[in-house]
Amino acid sequence: MEKLNVGIIGAGRIGRLHAEHLSRNAQVHVQTISDMFVTEELQGWATRLGISNVTQNYKDIIEDPSIQAVFICSSTNTHVPFITEAAQAGKHIFCEKPISLDYRQTMGALEAVKAAGVVLQTGFNRRFDHNFKRVRELVQTGKIGDAHLIKITSRDPAPPNPDYIKVSGGLFMDMAIHDFDMARYLSGSEVTEVYAQGAVLVDPVIGELGDIDTAIISLRFENGAMGVIDNSRKAVYGYDQRVEVFGSEGSVAVNNDYPNTAEISTKDSVYRDNPKFFFLERYHESYIDETRQFIECILTGSNQVPVDGFDALQAERIAFAAKKSMLEGRPVKLHEIN
Amino acid sequence: MEKLNVGIIGAGRIGRLHAEHLSRNAQVHVQTISDMFVTEELQGWATRLGISNVTQNYKDIIEDPSIQAVFICSSTNTHVPFITEAAQAGKHIFCEKPISLDYRQTMGALEAVKAAGVVLQTGFNRRFDHNFKRVRELVQTGKIGDAHLIKITSRDPAPPNPDYIKVSGGLFMDMAIHDFDMARYLSGSEVTEVYAQGAVLVDPVIGELGDIDTAIISLRFENGAMGVIDNSRKAVYGYDQRVEVFGSEGSVAVNNDYPNTAEISTKDSVYRDNPKFFFLERYHESYIDETRQFIECILTGSNQVPVDGFDALQAERIAFAAKKSMLEGRPVKLHEIN
Amino acid sequence: MEKLNVGIIGAGRIGRLHAEHLSRNAQVHVQTISDMFVTEELQGWATRLGISNVTQNYKDIIEDPSIQAVFICSSTNTHVPFITEAAQAGKHIFCEKPISLDYRQTMGALEAVKAAGVVLQTGFNRRFDHNFKRVRELVQTGKIGDAHLIKITSRDPAPPNPDYIKVSGGLFMDMAIHDFDMARYLSGSEVTEVYAQGAVLVDPVIGELGDIDTAIISLRFENGAMGVIDNSRKAVYGYDQRVEVFGSEGSVAVNNDYPNTAEISTKDSVYRDNPKFFFLERYHESYIDETRQFIECILTGSNQVPVDGFDALQAERIAFAAKKSMLEGRPVKLHEIN
Amino acid sequence: MEKLNVGIIGAGRIGRLHAEHLSRNAQVHVQTISDMFVTEELQGWATRLGISNVTQNYKDIIEDPSIQAVFICSSTNTHVPFITEAAQAGKHIFCEKPISLDYRQTMGALEAVKAAGVVLQTGFNRRFDHNFKRVRELVQTGKIGDAHLIKITSRDPAPPNPDYIKVSGGLFMDMAIHDFDMARYLSGSEVTEVYAQGAVLVDPVIGELGDIDTAIISLRFENGAMGVIDNSRKAVYGYDQRVEVFGSEGSVAVNNDYPNTAEISTKDSVYRDNPKFFFLERYHESYIDETRQFIECILTGSNQVPVDGFDALQAERIAFAAKKSMLEGRPVKLHEIN
Repeated sequence: MEKLNVGIIGAGRIGRLHAEHLSRNAQVHVQTISDMFVTEELQGWATRLGISNVTQNYKDIIEDPSIQAVFICSSTNTHVPFITEAAQAGKHIFCEKPISLDYRQTMGALEAVKAAGVVLQTGFNRRFDHNFKRVRELVQTGKIGDAHLIKITSRDPAPPNPDYIKVSGGLFMDMAIHDFDMARYLSGSEVTEVYAQGAVLVDPVIGELGDIDTAIISLRFENGAMGVIDNSRKAVYGYDQRVEVFGSEGSVAVNNDYPNTAEISTKDSVYRDNPKFFFLERYHESYIDETRQFIECILTGSNQVPVDGFDALQAERIAFAAKKSMLEGRPVKLHEIN
Repeated sequence: MEKLNVGIIGAGRIGRLHAEHLSRNAQVHVQTISDMFVTEELQGWATRLGISNVTQNYKDIIEDPSIQAVFICSSTNTHVPFITEAAQAGKHIFCEKPISLDYRQTMGALEAVKAAGVVLQTGFNRRFDHNFKRVRELVQTGKIGDAHLIKITSRDPAPPNPDYIKVSGGLFMDMAIHDFDMARYLSGSEVTEVYAQGAVLVDPVIGELGDIDTAIISLRFENGAMGVIDNSRKAVYGYDQRVEVFGSEGSVAVNNDYPNTAEISTKDSVYRDNPKFFFLERYHESYIDETRQFIECILTGSNQVPVDGFDALQAERIAFAAKKSMLEGRPVKLHEIN
Repeated sequence: MEKLNVGIIGAGRIGRLHAEHLSRNAQVHVQTISDMFVTEELQGWATRLGISNVTQNYKDIIEDPSIQAVFICSSTNTHVPFITEAAQAGKHIFCEKPISLDYRQTMGALEAVKAAGVVLQTGFNRRFDHNFKRVRELVQTGKIGDAHLIKITSRDPAPPNPDYIKVSGGLFMDMAIHDFDMARYLSGSEVTEVYAQGAVLVDPVIGELGDIDTAIISLRFENGAMGVIDNSRKAVYGYDQRVEVFGSEGSVAVNNDYPNTAEISTKDSVYRDNPKFFFLERYHESYIDETRQFIECILTGSNQVPVDGFDALQAERIAFAAKKSMLEGRPVKLHEIN
Repeated sequence: MEKLNVGIIGAGRIGRLHAEHLSRNAQVHVQTISDMFVTEELQGWATRLGISNVTQNYKDIIEDPSIQAVFICSSTNTHVPFITEAAQAGKHIFCEKPISLDYRQTMGALEAVKAAGVVLQTGFNRRFDHNFKRVRELVQTGKIGDAHLIKITSRDPAPPNPDYIKVSGGLFMDMAIHDFDMARYLSGSEVTEVYAQGAVLVDPVIGELGDIDTAIISLRFENGAMGVIDNSRKAVYGYDQRVEVFGSEGSVAVNNDYPNTAEISTKDSVYRDNPKFFFLERYHESYIDETRQFIECILTGSNQVPVDGFDALQAERIAFAAKKSMLEGRPVKLHEIN
């Protein structure tokens, strides 16, 4: 069996997650992982997974002719140069979202990818979630007729730490970006206009850092549908990830995933355990699936990755439009963002 | 508009309930209500409802030629004589369940009804519940194919007081009797065999009075189906009334009714308010419907009441068989109960 | 027992609904009902309900000194003059929503009410719904902490006929007005800003009449919370009426009401019957409750009606702001609407 | 890292399932797999999984001193001799259920295990299911008080083929045996009496082979609780695996697992996709967990396996009692089965 040789740039939480899934994929060999901080712990972890090399220098991946595909899991500000270099080296690329905080730079990276003729997949893992896939399928096959309203609820269980907020690009770019992609994915249509309301209701520190923690974002789509996203950085009951698409012939809604189906009746109430609390738990299968499909695409020579650079660019443009809308207190057309 | 003149024997909880519903029925006039204890409070209540007479003597009802129908809501031990007298006086009869604690006496009462050619409806109100009606309808129309398994959960929120238990005939006769009728109603078939297990788990006082408080009753039906009923006299979370019918082409299950649909998510759990706690609350509509249909039958001259004396007799025979089964530790055929 | 004497102006669907509930209320006597079209059918209906007089002239109500309270159930354009006349005649008033299509006229009517010292209740019946009452209670008692997001889904099963759309004031005024009141009721706070998106997706005829059939309306509240309402004039699966309030300590969501709890499992799917289809069915109890509470207020001499003229005015101002927002393509502050 | 060397006897569906899970467990090396039919396909499969040897002779496992633990996944009639030989060779044993169709033979095998001082775990995988574990935990920690009623619904999506039915030991032994173990697991108490009703309702061929396809089994427990199991070999809507435990302080019920949470509303109904259809899909995680815990026990030198030979024996005795009860038409005490 042919195996795909891959390198992973960045051994943080998400880099390691991909490494673990890739190491269980019989079609893949993880040749090298690079990280700015190579510790003994990292070495031990890599050995257990059967990763051949650990290096501080990402160029050991880019310049290794035996490596066919690169996973870019480093911090956002490195995505554009790494994509560019990897593309120029002829490697296929899986890059985490967002590609950059400035959609114009993202456009540059996409040019490099195009010029090199390599494949680029981006990390919108939620498209691979069993619930959202089912919604998309129902919409695409016309089970609910024409989509009129797309509603997305996306709330984190707890805010990130302030250090992250400083560099994240803000709620629209670091959190709602998944929802912007989801809106396009579910509707099968482009967003044409955005109106965003934001507020600091969870923690004043977030406001002091120039960000918001709560938002309602209204959307218009090319196909005439309208949408709304609501976000909060803190849902005390756990990760809240639901969508609803309402159409001319019906409606489909997905609820959260729960750790079990137990319903407990007591003298006080009828209750169940909280929904899955953390994104790694909730989206476990989706992370496995997105890498599996990427590998499949490369090995079969298809360049039809399920979520590509254009998808990343569009989500970034919507995020930019949302921020502009909030700052200027008016709806912003997507064609303003060029 | 023609109005039906009715009398009510017994002004306890259930007698008053029927009186209130009848007094709101434009086709009915409640002429007289009798009770062994005529208080000022009762007089006031009757006046407010527009009931013409209150009397201590039930014969004022039986012997009143202007009264066409009698509701028998007195204690169980009076049902047989009152049915017999009312029938002989040519009155149509609505009688609460059970007709008697001894099915042979019930048979006697049914003879009197038959001889007089009057209509007798019995108080299995649960047949008129929105949930159970829907199950019956699905079964009858073949939506789940042939019924294979009939499961009934029937648990009271709290045990009755000891004085009631002394005269009630026991759990099978005072409580499960509704479930025996439900088993026949849902399956559309006769019960042929009963195996009953009982236990005293809720309150030892109940055991000292010779009764049980918890039961599992297995059934066989003429059409080949099997069934099981589980009973408890104390479900701390409220009145628990669910059924499930499983068949060759599918299954239907009904859950409890709740006071609202609110789902509350907190850091501890996702919960909802307890199901409706009390039978008067849960079965409110069914009580209205059963009297409405009885009145309708009389006024239209139909003698096809929705639940009749034979239904009461069969439920009593099953209750008798269940008790016999528990005492003798063996399955009992219904044809043993003659 | 003292009885309140009432008159009802307008014997259309809603006038008759109130009449029927009032006629079953032991504390009320419906003295007179007026309608522009007095038919034999109306006479017969009134007689059956025990209503003493039927008249074509509403003045027979206004000028009848024995009548203490008036229900105004005529067409919207008559509400202001009838309120004014009834107030001047010293009658307490129950008026259907909206008071008028022009909030400045509504202000005038409220002045008349204030000057006369009478009580005015307005017909936001949804406040009396078991589900929404429970949400309000949970929010008010702090069970979910501070409210951050208020989400209201409000979709009709089918659009009204074109004749109604011509005079209704449009989706914001005839349909969303209930939701604007709900937003205030659930949040316990005033709306300060509105941004509305509308579209014609259900039926082009609605667009030709200058109205919309689908909307997403974003709100800001005085207490810092944000909200969103989504409306459609046509949900094929039935009346869709849900809300969710998300707060710092949790969230509460209410689902629709269903005619039964049956869950049916077949080889194709697990399904249940559609939610209650029509507003009279869904909000049955709420209509009874709102009139009961109004009567209670009058009889006890309280002037604390549960929903008053100011509530009606505020909902109308929000509706006006929503329309302005949609037409001008910008968020509109409520203080612009004076 | 120390690795446990294991051998697997039997490369059928369940043998391969365990092999696949074990091959992903970093603490395990699968040394050898044996099967009566060694094909090229089996060789290829084993190579891909990194299994060193494939053999037709199970003795290559029993006699290999480097192998510390044996998984017995061959047909039921071989379990007793293989357990005995493996125990005598000093290997720890994981054996699929049931150990044998004759509990007296099982007792013999358990003697051999005891004499050899090895560990034996048996394949009641459902104890490791997320739903049932949660129920057990709630019962054990007293959240529902004392258990009064234990209800188990266990229905297969489709009957096995007739060849299997001929050798399976019948519904009580091949199917309900899981439920008998579940009853003991959830109640934390021994079954003392069994009453079983069976019927042939699904397919007459099953009856011709001397088996039943539908059953209701009533149980009594040492701690006073009562229970009921209902079984069908054919639930058209999929694998139906639910339990409910009702106690003095409340109740807990678990529903089936579904492939997604999508709820679809159309003009006809509100529906969701059927529950997970097949046991491998539904119990996927439980199979991984049971092997993981077995390996953990061996490696840590604990001999406290989560489900042992005695558990298997008890379930077999209950199955035997159930069959006896059905044949003799009477409740059977477990102490009759010695």
